[in-house]
Amino acid sequence: MADGRVVFAVDLGGTRMRGALISPDGGILMRDAVPTQPSRGEPAAMRRLAGLLDRMTAATPGVEVVGVGMALAGPVDPVAATVHNPPNLPTWDGTSPTGDLSANVGLPAWVHNDASLAALGEYVYGIGRDVRHLVMVTVGTGVGGGLVLDGVVYGGLRGFAGEIGHLVVEPNGPPCPCGGCGCLEVMASGTALARMARERLESVEPSIVLSMARGELSRVRAETLVRAEARADRLAGEVLRAGGRYLGVGIATLRSVLDPELIVIGGGVAGNSHVFWPAMAEAARKHGMRGDKSALPVTPTALGDDAGLLGAAAMAWGELGVGPSYLK
Amino acid sequence: MADGRVVFAVDLGGTRMRGALISPDGGILMRDAVPTQPSRGEPAAMRRLAGLLDRMTAATPGVEVVGVGMALAGPVDPVAATVHNPPNLPTWDGTSPTGDLSANVGLPAWVHNDASLAALGEYVYGIGRDVRHLVMVTVGTGVGGGLVLDGVVYGGLRGFAGEIGHLVVEPNGPPCPCGGCGCLEVMASGTALARMARERLESVEPSIVLSMARGELSRVRAETLVRAEARADRLAGEVLRAGGRYLGVGIATLRSVLDPELIVIGGGVAGNSHVFWPAMAEAARKHGMRGDKSALPVTPTALGDDAGLLGAAAMAWGELGVGPSYLK
Repeated sequence: MADGRVVFAVDLGGTRMRGALISPDGGILMRDAVPTQPSRGEPAAMRRLAGLLDRMTAATPGVEVVGVGMALAGPVDPVAATVHNPPNLPTWDGTSPTGDLSANVGLPAWVHNDASLAALGEYVYGIGRDVRHLVMVTVGTGVGGGLVLDGVVYGGLRGFAGEIGHLVVEPNGPPCPCGGCGCLEVMASGTALARMARERLESVEPSIVLSMARGELSRVRAETLVRAEARADRLAGEVLRAGGRYLGVGIATLRSVLDPELIVIGGGVAGNSHVFWPAMAEAARKHGMRGDKSALPVTPTALGDDAGLLGAAAMAWGELGVGPSYLK
Repeated sequence: MADGRVVFAVDLGGTRMRGALISPDGGILMRDAVPTQPSRGEPAAMRRLAGLLDRMTAATPGVEVVGVGMALAGPVDPVAATVHNPPNLPTWDGTSPTGDLSANVGLPAWVHNDASLAALGEYVYGIGRDVRHLVMVTVGTGVGGGLVLDGVVYGGLRGFAGEIGHLVVEPNGPPCPCGGCGCLEVMASGTALARMARERLESVEPSIVLSMARGELSRVRAETLVRAEARADRLAGEVLRAGGRYLGVGIATLRSVLDPELIVIGGGVAGNSHVFWPAMAEAARKHGMRGDKSALPVTPTALGDDAGLLGAAAMAWGELGVGPSYLK
């Protein structure tokens, strides 16, 4: 924007806090990051974030920061702006990061779950600019998700809607860290794929995966499988296809429940494997209703790792009255 | 209402068309039904419905009918008011029942899927009067469902959202008439329970179910199982529990995806079996996320078979400007 107004968008994960100065049209004018160091406590992290904003503003002449949008990895109550037992941010339960940051920097601030804001980012600035209903699924270490329904981030009763990683795709599946079992997250995430590969390697199935992991089962990761599959490793291909099929089962369920216009898939596994995506698409069609057999409204992310940051910016701009509000 | 204004609410199924005159407060002043005879065509059915309305109005002094709300068993585009390949109404594809009825009776008319309107009925006049987000699941011959999200009937892109019978609960499950496989409908509906029982009876498992069905496998129905279970029949109890568990898996998925305030369960099986509901609740807890383990926001229907009729009335009153609009 010509007048130089920007928001400070933050993507707060368990390892680092990424910050960006973002204009109303989604332009990223400046970006930087600091470590989260969650064990040092939430107030210290917010002071570090305030320092980051100071440095970024000083290094970007002509901008005026008018608000803060924060994407946080964990369950968030967006109305009370409090965090609920975030798995990657122990000791932060019940705190209000945006409340404290706001007090530090003297700016209005809004917070939401990072997966919900990734969905909003794609909706406002990414691949979903022309749709009204969008579901985002991110397949990384875990499986995250977010919903934009009728142009609004949908949170349900407690703001926890969109936990797509915990829809049940295998009723007899293994326990999930969430407390349930057979969730998409334990059948298709990077962590799940590595677990499945390790189980098969333990029974001494032939594969180049183990040598790629320097002979150590504990070093087997989803990325190892993607690299092995590119070299036609059978075990790697089978595990990635199995994960893709479970994601496809989840996609079919999402279509039946929500009839979304677009399902955006992000994360490294889906983007880099040659077999994961086709296996997903085949299973989604197989399990889909008759009218859902042909066109599959599934597409890769356009914004990649910046979806959460851009969604945080979109939320802040909306609440500042620049563009529509995306909260309810 | 003192001024006698009513809407003509219609619940249109494959066998019969139920009509009711309903006041804005949900009072049913008069009710009656005529056969659907779907094979005679949609225009003939609408003329029969117009005749029913005439007779009902003549028999109810002092009422003024101001509009029509129709709940229809099948996929409906509520905006275009057209029907899409309704399985129980062959030859009706592409027709506009409310358009034709409206022309016959000279009243404004609105149509929506019957399961979506059952959800709305519970939301406006039933067990969900104090909530904002409600999911309805009806376990009968099939499994139907509807969503009220943030006070509005949610239809998604094409109005097909809420097809809860087709969320996938068993990735290796049998084919479903919808074209998919392993859907909730083929694992927990009355039809599915009867199929599972027949499969076990064919392998000559001991049970009183077969004698209750007068020795004919084809006469085994879900109701037979409910009666046999009440007499402690092991096979009947196991089949009903298996169905209940699959419904519980679906409930857990719905909670993770939508975080609803209330899930209302209707239909004969859930209401009459002693073991189906506890098995559902146990599985929903087992598969639920940690925060979803304790309180289960699941409740039986308050309106029973009238939920669709009352939802159709609520829709019509909303569109007539009496109360809020529940469509979007």
